Amino acid sequence: MHTTESLSYKHVNINGRFWYNLQKLNSSVIINSVYKRFKETGRFEALKYSWKEGDENKPHIFWDSDVAKWLEGAAYILQKEQNDELMDIVDNTIDTIEQNQDENGYFNSYFGVVEPENIFTRRTDHELYCAGHLIEASVAYFEATGKDKFLKMMCRYADHIDQIFRIDNSADFVTPGHQELELALVRLYKATDEKRYLELSKFFIDMRGANDKETYYCFANSKYTQDHLPVREQTSAEGHAVRAVYLYTAMADISKHYNDEKLFDACKAIFSNIIDKKMYITGGIGSTSEGEAFTIDYDLPNQTAYAETCAALGLALFSQKMLLCEQNAVYADIAELAIYNGFLSGISLDGKAFFYENPLEINPSLQERNSSTNKPARFPIMQRKEVFDCSCCPPNVVRFIASIGNTLYSYSDDTLFVNQYMESETKYNNTEIIQKTNYPIDGQIIINYRGDFSTLAVRVPSWCKSFEIDKDYSLKDGYAYIKVNSEDSIKLKFDMPVQLIEAHPNVQENAGRLAVKRGPIVYCLEGIDNGDNLRDISINLNADFKIYEESPFSLPVLYTKGYRRETDDRSLYNQASNHKISQKLKCIPYSNFANRGISEMIVWILKN
Amino acid sequence: MHTTESLSYKHVNINGRFWYNLQKLNSSVIINSVYKRFKETGRFEALKYSWKEGDENKPHIFWDSDVAKWLEGAAYILQKEQNDELMDIVDNTIDTIEQNQDENGYFNSYFGVVEPENIFTRRTDHELYCAGHLIEASVAYFEATGKDKFLKMMCRYADHIDQIFRIDNSADFVTPGHQELELALVRLYKATDEKRYLELSKFFIDMRGANDKETYYCFANSKYTQDHLPVREQTSAEGHAVRAVYLYTAMADISKHYNDEKLFDACKAIFSNIIDKKMYITGGIGSTSEGEAFTIDYDLPNQTAYAETCAALGLALFSQKMLLCEQNAVYADIAELAIYNGFLSGISLDGKAFFYENPLEINPSLQERNSSTNKPARFPIMQRKEVFDCSCCPPNVVRFIASIGNTLYSYSDDTLFVNQYMESETKYNNTEIIQKTNYPIDGQIIINYRGDFSTLAVRVPSWCKSFEIDKDYSLKDGYAYIKVNSEDSIKLKFDMPVQLIEAHPNVQENAGRLAVKRGPIVYCLEGIDNGDNLRDISINLNADFKIYEESPFSLPVLYTKGYRRETDDRSLYNQASNHKISQKLKCIPYSNFANRGISEMIVWILKN
Repeated sequence: MHTTESLSYKHVNINGRFWYNLQKLNSSVIINSVYKRFKETGRFEALKYSWKEGDENKPHIFWDSDVAKWLEGAAYILQKEQNDELMDIVDNTIDTIEQNQDENGYFNSYFGVVEPENIFTRRTDHELYCAGHLIEASVAYFEATGKDKFLKMMCRYADHIDQIFRIDNSADFVTPGHQELELALVRLYKATDEKRYLELSKFFIDMRGANDKETYYCFANSKYTQDHLPVREQTSAEGHAVRAVYLYTAMADISKHYNDEKLFDACKAIFSNIIDKKMYITGGIGSTSEGEAFTIDYDLPNQTAYAETCAALGLALFSQKMLLCEQNAVYADIAELAIYNGFLSGISLDGKAFFYENPLEINPSLQERNSSTNKPARFPIMQRKEVFDCSCCPPNVVRFIASIGNTLYSYSDDTLFVNQYMESETKYNNTEIIQKTNYPIDGQIIINYRGDFSTLAVRVPSWCKSFEIDKDYSLKDGYAYIKVNSEDSIKLKFDMPVQLIEAHPNVQENAGRLAVKRGPIVYCLEGIDNGDNLRDISINLNADFKIYEESPFSLPVLYTKGYRRETDDRSLYNQASNHKISQKLKCIPYSNFANRGISEMIVWILKN
Repeated sequence: MHTTESLSYKHVNINGRFWYNLQKLNSSVIINSVYKRFKETGRFEALKYSWKEGDENKPHIFWDSDVAKWLEGAAYILQKEQNDELMDIVDNTIDTIEQNQDENGYFNSYFGVVEPENIFTRRTDHELYCAGHLIEASVAYFEATGKDKFLKMMCRYADHIDQIFRIDNSADFVTPGHQELELALVRLYKATDEKRYLELSKFFIDMRGANDKETYYCFANSKYTQDHLPVREQTSAEGHAVRAVYLYTAMADISKHYNDEKLFDACKAIFSNIIDKKMYITGGIGSTSEGEAFTIDYDLPNQTAYAETCAALGLALFSQKMLLCEQNAVYADIAELAIYNGFLSGISLDGKAFFYENPLEINPSLQERNSSTNKPARFPIMQRKEVFDCSCCPPNVVRFIASIGNTLYSYSDDTLFVNQYMESETKYNNTEIIQKTNYPIDGQIIINYRGDFSTLAVRVPSWCKSFEIDKDYSLKDGYAYIKVNSEDSIKLKFDMPVQLIEAHPNVQENAGRLAVKRGPIVYCLEGIDNGDNLRDISINLNADFKIYEESPFSLPVLYTKGYRRETDDRSLYNQASNHKISQKLKCIPYSNFANRGISEMIVWILKN
């Protein structure tokens, strides 16, 4: 296995354009929106271990994970900018956790307070998931601040888990019901150089689907928690999508650290299954609300798409780990697709509200479908919300945006891989690399480089059919390999025309329909711009598009010509005809949908 | 209101071709299939009132209605053909009911045995619905055999209901939770000339949605049982589709008998709402399984279509009653559409199995959609079954096919209306009318007429854009009015080309799609003939069709040319192209789908 190392966000300063604006929004609005809601709902208070029966805001089994992800995001922000108020909140929160952490290292604001007698008895109750996020937060805090208190606290917790689960095997279950700890332990290993954390992660990976002691969710089968087979025998993405990609992320990481080809083969098979058969064009995954799960191959309904924000983020994480195992640009392509579409759609343009589910089509009228019964029709919500009872997505947004710099570079001994394009300055040891670009608004990038690598491998995005590089290069697996001097400058020009995309015929829902894409950006139509009955609007394969930057959208909008059947008041069924009238169409970035009130929305447009 | 009278099936002998074959199948196979299953499941045994706690086959609240519909169908068959064995079963069944009928007239094999203390306390429990079907059966038996025992028994039951509900108002509810009694009482009135039965029917119609004593289903709202408004204020079809059309049928009947224009206006508004906004192209109605109900306007999903067989039948009943109030061929057109498609699809070609739900699209692979949870995805079943726990449809099929002759003619003083076309001989008083036709296999009809009417009004089907009549005629509301001699012969030729139909743009599900129709027959594609991924097959608007009669289909099949995108093994999303390959397509009658094993099926075909 030819592996590479990831270059930490710590060394990458995003200093302009799209991602700069988004990181500013993140540190000035999004993190505060999430903090406010978490405080109101008692998530921070719960850490004090002071809740008593009869009090409001009873702690919930997954609350620690929410706070931990928020802490992790705060740490990334604090690494980049001074914010004493935020630092105080973070430090106080860590102090509170420290005060209530058990002598043996255990900490859980639900079980520690509400059901201490049931610690580590119920696999379904997210204890190890919360532990994993606390560990990730502690690593992030340590790396951002250099302060090791939180890290040491979490090492004690990890040691306790190691004792109970691996050494004593005394818990009532063997592996986490909701994966996360596995990937967190690899991070802990890398932060501490304590190999036992890596081994504990591998233990959980190895035991999954390979033990008789496991317990399951009553409403699900073993696929839900990816327990249906030992992981090295798994070849398809199954079950709860977020759990799945968190597991696959750890599997890729473990295969890299142990040079475990068999495990990596499983990762490759699963990755292919996702991108060839189970992924929305937005990078959204997990198409059903039933178990928030992957379903069968090619089952990608648009109106009922679950496509959780966290799952798109998780796919980006999985892709990035795969990229470190194999230098194939497909992994960076998929990360890019998921980030710009299925992930970013999870946040409102004002940074205050969030989607958990990200449908690819909305028809508000259908919400009232079950007009004569008390059971509402099940559709994703149509407007982002400020908080959810199960609020995993908002803090995930905070931590991911704040650490987006992680996605840009990886390196081997002699080669620096440029995986993502963002206006930025990066300094790491002797290396300095500046990207001047308006990407993804256009496809031109100037890379100013200084350093010791002999080769720069720049990703040629898979969406790009025509490009120019002002240096000699050789193409391999989606990267243009360019020999560089110790100081060099490279101009990249990726042509970024609007593309019309069709889905595989097995995706029956999209038959006869086209999606509009430009570069990595997927577009949609909204009723507010184009009138209702969007499903009846068609476009030509040779449609001409005009590109404009326009408020309030964060990325360019497109104008083109479309067609509708004439809308005379006609009866329900009529002799078919070819009569159509043309109309101007406005396509907005998919990630920007639902920012102007409830409206119809569609990604897959009828082909004329 | 210019009303007409319906000519009873009693006088109509279907003596050849499509309906002759179907009536033979009905009397030789279907009725026996239903009888066998009803006997096995204890439905006949229950009438003996001998069930005790601990016995198997506990009576169910709607079983009497199943048996009653079967009895009614048997009576229609016995009116046409000698069958001593069947007559014995019928007579013995009536004797059993007689033995257990209460002195006050009450009979119900569930409440009478299991919960006698709760008689007429629960509106949700189908008592009056069962009573209605028993009354219909008794009228049918009386009219078929001339024997009045059963009729008198049911008059006593009706008198008892009149006493309890109308005179004493002593039941715990006011109107039937499941309509049926209303229309049955009109039939009882016509058979007995006792106006109090008509008045009781009107009482139930008048009180619906207009009283404070009513109780409702816990899972539903007042629309479910059409209680949301007094009926004369209702303008849309709402709630449980079968209950709805049974109510609307009675409303039309009552408006005719009382010359109640306001009630008829409500019927017209509701009828328009159904055919303009809530009806599948098959005549199926009630698009959701949630409450087996109508939903919102234009919400006509194909894969999850409920479209109960009984509801299509009920729409035909409603249409026929409307036709007696207003001589507009649209009512006969809709009856024809529902009968040949959404109703006939309910029966297997061998007459032994039945559909309750009649979807317009089947994709077997999606059944496994919820692959990681224990909750199966909700789709209609894909193969007909011999019996259902709730088995309302099979005996409804028996009685409707046996009495199809009711649909052919209606008359006023001087005009005989020819509403449906079937090879047949009819004699009624001085009138004799013979139809020689292969309809609906082709559109040529010779009508040989003898009698006293001065005018024959023959329906020109709304699907027919070109026709010839070898006599002078004037067209009005879809009828060609022809002056006739006391002996006359008329040749009709309705051109019956294949037509491609599109749905109103508001039916978002069918955007960009076409349905294939010939005459009143709707066609579909099945995977067994055309390969899978039917949603990806497209046809041209000018496609040429060849028509063949072919086993095992009961109506002609059509061959044409279609197109598919090339099926190379491609990735999930690709640059769109116009590359297509042509393939021969076989379209079979929609009503014949699912007779050759589980297969994909589609009605709405992509437009090329």
